[in-house]
Amino acid sequence: MTEPSRVLNPLLRQRLMSADAAAALIRPGDNVGMSGFTGTGHPKAVPAALARRIAQAHRDGEPFKVGVWTGASTAPELDAALAQVDGIELRLPYQSDPVCRERINAGRMEYLDIHLSHVAQFVWSGFIGHLDVAVVEVAGILEDGRLVPAASIGNNKTWLDQADRVILEVNAASPDLEGMHDIYYGTHLPPQRMPIPLVRPDDRIGEAYYRCDPAKVVAVVQTNAPDRDTKFSLVDDASRRIAGHIIEFLQHEVKKGRLPRELLPLQSGVGNIANAVMAGLQDAPFDNLTAYTEVLQDGMLALLKSGKLRSASATALSLGAQALAEFERELDFYRSRIVLRPQEISNHPEIVRRLGVIAMNGMIEADIYGNVNSTHVHGTRIMNGIGGSGDFARNAWLSIFMTPSTAKNGAISCIVPMASHVDHTEHDVQVIVTEQGLADLRGLSPKQRSQLVIENCAHPDYKPLLRDYVRRALESGSGRHTPHLLQEAFNWHLQAQAGERMGGLPKA
Amino acid sequence: MTEPSRVLNPLLRQRLMSADAAAALIRPGDNVGMSGFTGTGHPKAVPAALARRIAQAHRDGEPFKVGVWTGASTAPELDAALAQVDGIELRLPYQSDPVCRERINAGRMEYLDIHLSHVAQFVWSGFIGHLDVAVVEVAGILEDGRLVPAASIGNNKTWLDQADRVILEVNAASPDLEGMHDIYYGTHLPPQRMPIPLVRPDDRIGEAYYRCDPAKVVAVVQTNAPDRDTKFSLVDDASRRIAGHIIEFLQHEVKKGRLPRELLPLQSGVGNIANAVMAGLQDAPFDNLTAYTEVLQDGMLALLKSGKLRSASATALSLGAQALAEFERELDFYRSRIVLRPQEISNHPEIVRRLGVIAMNGMIEADIYGNVNSTHVHGTRIMNGIGGSGDFARNAWLSIFMTPSTAKNGAISCIVPMASHVDHTEHDVQVIVTEQGLADLRGLSPKQRSQLVIENCAHPDYKPLLRDYVRRALESGSGRHTPHLLQEAFNWHLQAQAGERMGGLPKA
Repeated sequence: MTEPSRVLNPLLRQRLMSADAAAALIRPGDNVGMSGFTGTGHPKAVPAALARRIAQAHRDGEPFKVGVWTGASTAPELDAALAQVDGIELRLPYQSDPVCRERINAGRMEYLDIHLSHVAQFVWSGFIGHLDVAVVEVAGILEDGRLVPAASIGNNKTWLDQADRVILEVNAASPDLEGMHDIYYGTHLPPQRMPIPLVRPDDRIGEAYYRCDPAKVVAVVQTNAPDRDTKFSLVDDASRRIAGHIIEFLQHEVKKGRLPRELLPLQSGVGNIANAVMAGLQDAPFDNLTAYTEVLQDGMLALLKSGKLRSASATALSLGAQALAEFERELDFYRSRIVLRPQEISNHPEIVRRLGVIAMNGMIEADIYGNVNSTHVHGTRIMNGIGGSGDFARNAWLSIFMTPSTAKNGAISCIVPMASHVDHTEHDVQVIVTEQGLADLRGLSPKQRSQLVIENCAHPDYKPLLRDYVRRALESGSGRHTPHLLQEAFNWHLQAQAGERMGGLPKA
Repeated sequence: MTEPSRVLNPLLRQRLMSADAAAALIRPGDNVGMSGFTGTGHPKAVPAALARRIAQAHRDGEPFKVGVWTGASTAPELDAALAQVDGIELRLPYQSDPVCRERINAGRMEYLDIHLSHVAQFVWSGFIGHLDVAVVEVAGILEDGRLVPAASIGNNKTWLDQADRVILEVNAASPDLEGMHDIYYGTHLPPQRMPIPLVRPDDRIGEAYYRCDPAKVVAVVQTNAPDRDTKFSLVDDASRRIAGHIIEFLQHEVKKGRLPRELLPLQSGVGNIANAVMAGLQDAPFDNLTAYTEVLQDGMLALLKSGKLRSASATALSLGAQALAEFERELDFYRSRIVLRPQEISNHPEIVRRLGVIAMNGMIEADIYGNVNSTHVHGTRIMNGIGGSGDFARNAWLSIFMTPSTAKNGAISCIVPMASHVDHTEHDVQVIVTEQGLADLRGLSPKQRSQLVIENCAHPDYKPLLRDYVRRALESGSGRHTPHLLQEAFNWHLQAQAGERMGGLPKA
């Protein structure tokens, strides 16, 4: 073992051990709070060691499962490794792992899909059970025992505060982010809560390090492993057109005086469309932008680099290999422009509302009345989870949801008569965008919205069918506030489940 | 006309006129912001005069409609009068009037159903159009032109600030509430927003009177008319049992250390069940209670009287005749214990989250996975609107939804396989209660929730059918995260639409 130069605290140096030895300190039935948000900052070694231990226990005929709580999604060496051995009893609050997803949808793993801003509160309140162990990746341990955070913060502060036992992974490959973090220690449970003193997106209200009682630390494991290389597709035509519609809309809002010229803090969901919007902003006539978001992706980094974006607040970095290299080359430049916070602050309704963010999130489908499904394919199969989209959409200045108008080569319309699951209600969705166009639903009744969503957002193949649905629903004698034909509201989903094209359309 | 003793400002005394003369100042196509929240504080004379004018215009073959924006529900002399003559183009943000409801569901009136906390922001932002006229009831006009609020505040501050023209109704029958109001003038649009400095439910952070530019006041109309007499049914057995389950649950939470002995601020929706819960608290082992809610009803007044409730914050009083008489007898007692605020503050997500309210709201139906429908009968017909239930539920410490397990003499189950409209998603619903029992959904996956909701909350007649639905959905091969049979998810609603008993059960 090399000199543990990132572990400066003498007491914690005595806790150095192998991942297997650390994993042996986790017991069947434990709830384990792991670091990790969008593929960064998750523990790299202990989860896999735990998975090996669980597999052995199962081979020995012994039951062994744990509860796995994280910030958000992690990486195969955590989620897939543990799911593969049927080691997860219950997973929360967000995942995007194929193995996990398969297990959940097969009914073999419980999954609790909650607003990311609610997680810390639910753990502090004791609503979702006791947290036994924290397994948290850090970039280093200071001499006084404080911990240098890694590339994501997520719920780490809460895990370190609440767990009985703490296992630390000190990752020598973690970039030098010291000073970029802002860990707020002012949260309380009611009735002791006070206003959170954050009024500008780049305000610093906390500390640069985690506090952690060294007496609780049962193991320190050294690793040297990179974060997940988050690959983005090249910006495709549909994403480029969605971005174009959004930027045109924002320009219109500025012109009408409903947005300042530097806009309001941007929140952007994870993925290719979000990245495309950021790319589009590169050439848009807005300057001095700010971001108050969950995840800082490649597109946002480029905006920082070009100077279009003045500052960005997030709870995690999630960069592709090339962007990460650029980031590490210019660390000090980015250090002065990026703040990483706990997700209870990055997603806090109080702050999101106060700042008036522009929330831009992807979705699975929207219905013609403006209800959005972010989580369930055909109403039953979980995709990833709601993540922070609800935290932002409900409290945003503008809540925008975006998707290509179709999926699976046009076999699926992402604009449907009725959403098969609702994560964002008609009360929370202001703007829907597809590559076809943008529907500004503000101030419109459900019937009025349906016209706009169909005409502006639906794919031309599906427009006549959607118009026909509304016409027949209006004529049916059921209520005309939100006209529906309940007997056929999900026919399209049933057709898709049967492998047919939605709407009974001929295969493309 | 008697001496206008409640109109002390000399300039505004010059604006005294009849309701008909005032209504003549409202133009076709105007958006009119009217006072009124749960049957109190609405203008008593001008809306009816406007309705007469509109009826005459229609007889003369002239189109005449207005947009009607309020705090929440009003009374027949406003909503019914204007709807009856087809005088409303678009209504927002909440209504409970039978004539309005009929017009909306017939497709003859547009209705915009939005979170009550969003209304002021949407008007200030210009998102829902320009406010032309305010028609606001007040209890009096001070010599310096400031206005004494009446029994509800709602959006009055915003109407007075934003409207081009202001019509005031000074109601001589309004009780002497001077000093009970707290009008906060510290709200801004982003990026200028600051923390709202309210940290205890009874904090006063504003002023006792409305500011109003006298130059904008085009008419002052004197009235002498009582508010709506909000009649409550006697507490029935189902409501009493629902209240009992909630109180038992709260005691359990105190015992577990998850609630302080004096609980947290209570929010209680409008209606008989809410009133029953308050009646139940009278005999419950909690003292020093507080309330942070929208509407102060009879039950809460009785809790104040008995001393169980230390203070109550609301945006409106809504009392039956007997409770109102008691209130007026002991005005000074209640004045020191009640704070009335603008609804943007009573319902503000920042405050609701900070205080950690216990939110208790009624609903139309819940599904077995914990999605709640608060607004639409059989998915298409609007009942009233979402009101403030979303403001509270999303940000509450505990979000509780309650309903009798059946409606229409058992023909309708209020626990259904799939909610026919979703106002509160699975992510926002922690507890469901019927007279049958209580389901604590915290920390449970959808499948686990379904067991609890069926076994604890559904009526015995419907339990076997719901169990069978879940079993067949699990076996169907569709996703097992949230098992559904989309082809029959709404069969019960279709049966009810056809006048049959849900589930194909024989008529009781």
